[in-house]
Amino acid sequence: RGKIQVFHYQVMKWVLALLVGSIVGLVGFFNNIAVENIAGYKLLLTSNLMRQDRNLEAFLLYMACNVVLAASAAAICAYFAPAAAGSGIPEVKSYLNGVDAHSILAPSTLFVKIIGSIFGVSAGFVLGKEGPMVHTGACIAALLGQGGSRKYGLTWSWLRYFKNDLDRRDLITCGAAAGVTAAFRAPVGGVLFALEEATSWWRSALLWRTFSTTAVALMVLKSMIEYCRSGNCGLFGEGGLIMFDVSSRVTSYTAVDIIAVIILGVLGGLFGALFNHLLDRVLRRYGRINEKGAPYKILLTAFISIITSCCSFGLSSLSPCIPCPRDLPAGRCPTIGRSGNFKKFWCPAGQYNALASLFLNTNDDAIRNLFSGGTDSEFNVSTLLVFYTAIYSLALITYGVAVPSGLFIPVILSGATFGRLLGKVFGSANGLDTGLFALLGAASFLGGTMRMTVSVCVILLELTNDLLLLPLIMLVLLIAKTVADIFNKGVYDQIVRMKGLPFLEVHGDACMRSLVAIDVVSGPVITLSSVERVGAVVSTLRRTGHNGFPVIEDEPFAPAPELCGLVLRSHLLVLLQGRMFTRTRVKTSATEVFRKLKPFDFAKVGSAGKPLEVDDLGLTDEEMEMYVDLHPITNRSPYTVLENMSLVKAAVLFRDLGLRHMCVVPRTTGRPPVLGILTRHDFMPQYIRGLFQNVLRE
Amino acid sequence: RGKIQVFHYQVMKWVLALLVGSIVGLVGFFNNIAVENIAGYKLLLTSNLMRQDRNLEAFLLYMACNVVLAASAAAICAYFAPAAAGSGIPEVKSYLNGVDAHSILAPSTLFVKIIGSIFGVSAGFVLGKEGPMVHTGACIAALLGQGGSRKYGLTWSWLRYFKNDLDRRDLITCGAAAGVTAAFRAPVGGVLFALEEATSWWRSALLWRTFSTTAVALMVLKSMIEYCRSGNCGLFGEGGLIMFDVSSRVTSYTAVDIIAVIILGVLGGLFGALFNHLLDRVLRRYGRINEKGAPYKILLTAFISIITSCCSFGLSSLSPCIPCPRDLPAGRCPTIGRSGNFKKFWCPAGQYNALASLFLNTNDDAIRNLFSGGTDSEFNVSTLLVFYTAIYSLALITYGVAVPSGLFIPVILSGATFGRLLGKVFGSANGLDTGLFALLGAASFLGGTMRMTVSVCVILLELTNDLLLLPLIMLVLLIAKTVADIFNKGVYDQIVRMKGLPFLEVHGDACMRSLVAIDVVSGPVITLSSVERVGAVVSTLRRTGHNGFPVIEDEPFAPAPELCGLVLRSHLLVLLQGRMFTRTRVKTSATEVFRKLKPFDFAKVGSAGKPLEVDDLGLTDEEMEMYVDLHPITNRSPYTVLENMSLVKAAVLFRDLGLRHMCVVPRTTGRPPVLGILTRHDFMPQYIRGLFQNVLRE
Repeated sequence: RGKIQVFHYQVMKWVLALLVGSIVGLVGFFNNIAVENIAGYKLLLTSNLMRQDRNLEAFLLYMACNVVLAASAAAICAYFAPAAAGSGIPEVKSYLNGVDAHSILAPSTLFVKIIGSIFGVSAGFVLGKEGPMVHTGACIAALLGQGGSRKYGLTWSWLRYFKNDLDRRDLITCGAAAGVTAAFRAPVGGVLFALEEATSWWRSALLWRTFSTTAVALMVLKSMIEYCRSGNCGLFGEGGLIMFDVSSRVTSYTAVDIIAVIILGVLGGLFGALFNHLLDRVLRRYGRINEKGAPYKILLTAFISIITSCCSFGLSSLSPCIPCPRDLPAGRCPTIGRSGNFKKFWCPAGQYNALASLFLNTNDDAIRNLFSGGTDSEFNVSTLLVFYTAIYSLALITYGVAVPSGLFIPVILSGATFGRLLGKVFGSANGLDTGLFALLGAASFLGGTMRMTVSVCVILLELTNDLLLLPLIMLVLLIAKTVADIFNKGVYDQIVRMKGLPFLEVHGDACMRSLVAIDVVSGPVITLSSVERVGAVVSTLRRTGHNGFPVIEDEPFAPAPELCGLVLRSHLLVLLQGRMFTRTRVKTSATEVFRKLKPFDFAKVGSAGKPLEVDDLGLTDEEMEMYVDLHPITNRSPYTVLENMSLVKAAVLFRDLGLRHMCVVPRTTGRPPVLGILTRHDFMPQYIRGLFQNVLRE
Repeated sequence: RGKIQVFHYQVMKWVLALLVGSIVGLVGFFNNIAVENIAGYKLLLTSNLMRQDRNLEAFLLYMACNVVLAASAAAICAYFAPAAAGSGIPEVKSYLNGVDAHSILAPSTLFVKIIGSIFGVSAGFVLGKEGPMVHTGACIAALLGQGGSRKYGLTWSWLRYFKNDLDRRDLITCGAAAGVTAAFRAPVGGVLFALEEATSWWRSALLWRTFSTTAVALMVLKSMIEYCRSGNCGLFGEGGLIMFDVSSRVTSYTAVDIIAVIILGVLGGLFGALFNHLLDRVLRRYGRINEKGAPYKILLTAFISIITSCCSFGLSSLSPCIPCPRDLPAGRCPTIGRSGNFKKFWCPAGQYNALASLFLNTNDDAIRNLFSGGTDSEFNVSTLLVFYTAIYSLALITYGVAVPSGLFIPVILSGATFGRLLGKVFGSANGLDTGLFALLGAASFLGGTMRMTVSVCVILLELTNDLLLLPLIMLVLLIAKTVADIFNKGVYDQIVRMKGLPFLEVHGDACMRSLVAIDVVSGPVITLSSVERVGAVVSTLRRTGHNGFPVIEDEPFAPAPELCGLVLRSHLLVLLQGRMFTRTRVKTSATEVFRKLKPFDFAKVGSAGKPLEVDDLGLTDEEMEMYVDLHPITNRSPYTVLENMSLVKAAVLFRDLGLRHMCVVPRTTGRPPVLGILTRHDFMPQYIRGLFQNVLRE
């Protein structure tokens, strides 16, 4: 590349990152506005009907709204982009580990993810928009990085430098971080999330770029909120983005407080691990239902929506009315309308329904109510216990339905309820506010299920804007994660494994320990000659599904067969399409080849683009007999390991460098120059266990 | 290792990390107490003399105190541990990159670093205790990790699992992070500092452990401060650790503010780059003086100390007295005694000396004064200009003297002054507080010199405890770093390069581009046979300084010579010391060898420990003729590259996996099984440039 191209590349890299940041910020804002307005009008209508004492009608309307929203979310998800269901964080995580699952980052997925998430959250489900925002951010980044979508005719040629794995991965990391920022208004938390949970490879340079992306996303979000403050955005008010002000409520704490916090951490870890365990079971069962087809998915979603509606309305109506606290100013209790701490429901004047304050609200508002300080007496123990049980169960049965659904909000919600509950139980023995206990409870549940530490801690700090809480949050996270790690893995790891994605773990599995590289090479290796007959290339491509082939340099180009390098299936296809064939077995000069084929022709196609197939080429019989020189497209420096390299060390090499293929070369002379190719699948514990079933059992 | 040992190892890993955290926290606290008391009494004495109008005596006392403190710091540094001079961050950074420079982490270095830093800071130099705290943290971690110091007879056998590079590096990373935490009370900033600036390799597991370490350090620090609040710690009060409360002073800003901030960022970047450039020159000149011996070092330090004292006292006395602002409550202006915003100096009652408020204070207090909000009129433009010029120049000439000296505080100090100056210049055109401008100025200078972004941002946020400042700080950092990156590298990278430490950069140098692995292999490779004559081993060890030797398996153990693995010099020496020799050339069983030699005998010695030498072994002539089997100590899976592997890719492999040796193996048959060994030095641009001078020039 020339100097201008390098400059162009550098500038574009930054422009793209900032563009990703601003678009993700805008989308996050749009998402919030839509949810607040849809859910807001729904709740407003319901509460208006209840004010006229038309309670049954109110319930039916509420349920109908929910079911319609849920069913439409499920329908677009099932028919247009099945990949958009669920959180999306496990998929993004796998992508950044090198697993390019089908249409995970396609434009249709992006579209469905945004719309589906809005509908799903508005439908009153116990799910969040945070996970989907991360996926949305990643999709936007992928889309920009691949220069738009070829399928929909949106491509920009100046983005052509980014059609490779590394740049795309970097951009998607930025996108995921921006997603977290847009969801939580937490720029540092976003960066740390990308670092701790999302990526598998990290470079210092990326830290800096990710940080700028999240900064831009935050600024866009902030200026839009500023614009909305004057009431231009319908029902969207202060409450749109979760942001809790529990500032300056604690400066010092006693030993009793610390003990309470430790207990909270332990219990949070236990309940978190239990949540993961149960969720795994529920997801497996749902998987069997969802497999049956789109109508089943929609029915399941509608069913869960009905259960959720019944739960929230039914439990609220069973709960008794509580007189308002006397010291509150008039108008603050009970509140009528959309938001507010003390919901009237069908209580007489001067009384409020505590459960309705939590259930008949958006999840964000419910969390804010739980976190709010100085309201120790608002929710009593039984209210919190009922709400906790309901939310914990609903969260479990909701995540698996076929709509975009995040896990952060359910976990925070149940954690906050649990924490507040514990705060009430400890009562006056400790000096901490129950609102603070709710925050710590949320932290402990997040630690217990997601097993993220630094990022959760920073996100919570950025949400609450009080750094003095740091030691307590750290302590509770440490304990919760440690306790939960005894039982099972983090929820995202669990989902990755359940989906069967070939994720490369940091540490090799125990079964690799006594093996060497050659042990896992299966079958004879399929090689190509450096100048090969077209027919042979085509038949090799047809016969196998491999993506990389070692190229052997043999006579007359070398005295004895030697490893020339590695050639990729996709590059082979492009070369064949270019029809640079010769009648005899001679080298063609590279300049000649690249006069006809530009480097960009070899660029990776987008994740939704259709790759070239052998049969598309339409090679004639005459051409099949000709020769093609593979030298120009051969990677001359593939990473290699000796055959007797310990498999664990080979796995470290493979993972740390982010390879796709690795050649196994012989240690002694008089053997073929390459003995096999190792790919990601050869390092999967399941595969190795299958190969050595009998040996390992002994 | 058995299960119990693994458990032991896991538990110890955590115990050590937490221990490092608490010790670093304690040391940090002790450091603060000492500085506050020594500097405090010095300033108190001076100010008492001035109240009696004995101004000359006051000046002489002040200067004498400074010179004595400075000279003693320089003396212990020059005579006991020259490695303790300077910031220590470049050294820690290099260590974590794999460069084990001499006695960088030795106990004597630790001792001198702590004491020297206390004396240096108390002496009124324009230097900080933050860099030394990072080095101190790393030393403590190294010391604990290697089980105490063998030299001083302090060893614990239960720490024996940690005598390897990986565990020690992890622990030192934790220590460095804890150092930042202890210096700034910034736990998240500490983690990010370790991630962004210190380490070259990073694993997710480490994030979690580092975070716990910093959490413990913070808690220890907090509880100690709580203890001191009741006045048990002499002059140590609230002011001990820098912690600025600029809370809630800004909620929204206009376009004019943003423009002012952008200008601040650009200027910060320019002045930062200039600072790096000038510092490099000063350090080179100082290097020549310091080389001449310890007395020169002490003289230079004393000289700079005199200049500093004259500057602070002289400039203060030239500055006019300013009437106190009328709206201040009585007693707040002028303040007499140690700290406070409005210093009396020799002004009449009701007036204060603005320069003295900045100069005749500890640096921490000066920064606090600059950051303090609502004091727009305290310092006028000329005061700030004089102070800025003085501090910028003093910072440049101070860093290179032979005392432990950090760069954070000087940079923050000059940045804050510059920011406040700019805030005054913009005057009423913008709505931001001048205290906030000082903060942003500090950020821009930090971005311009250190080129850290995320960690600086988080540290500043943790110092000010106001997350709403985040967007502004981010913006200013982004701009400053971008501008400064045009001119030169970050100050720590510059020092690393100036010290000639073989630091492996992320990106290979341009000169590697057209080379392959075999090109940089120099001279014939020195190999050992798998069962070798003792005499041959000894002569090889004597003849060369290499640390690793390829082991060749040849007849009768293999039909043709083949690469068996790699053996390390240190392991060879231990094996020879064990005297497991045979009279004939046969294999000895590994179990037999390990009955005599425990795995711990092969553990790495501490950084200050004296390694075993060949001549210490005292081998007899008879023994020299015997054979020794190298199989048991050979690493059977060394990482290898083919001879024609591109050097850039080989460098990526070398760096990303953190290797020390890499074998180059042939691609064709009929050659020796190993062609050479690549070490860190073979990847240094200087070395490669030297090899291919003529070729590269063309």
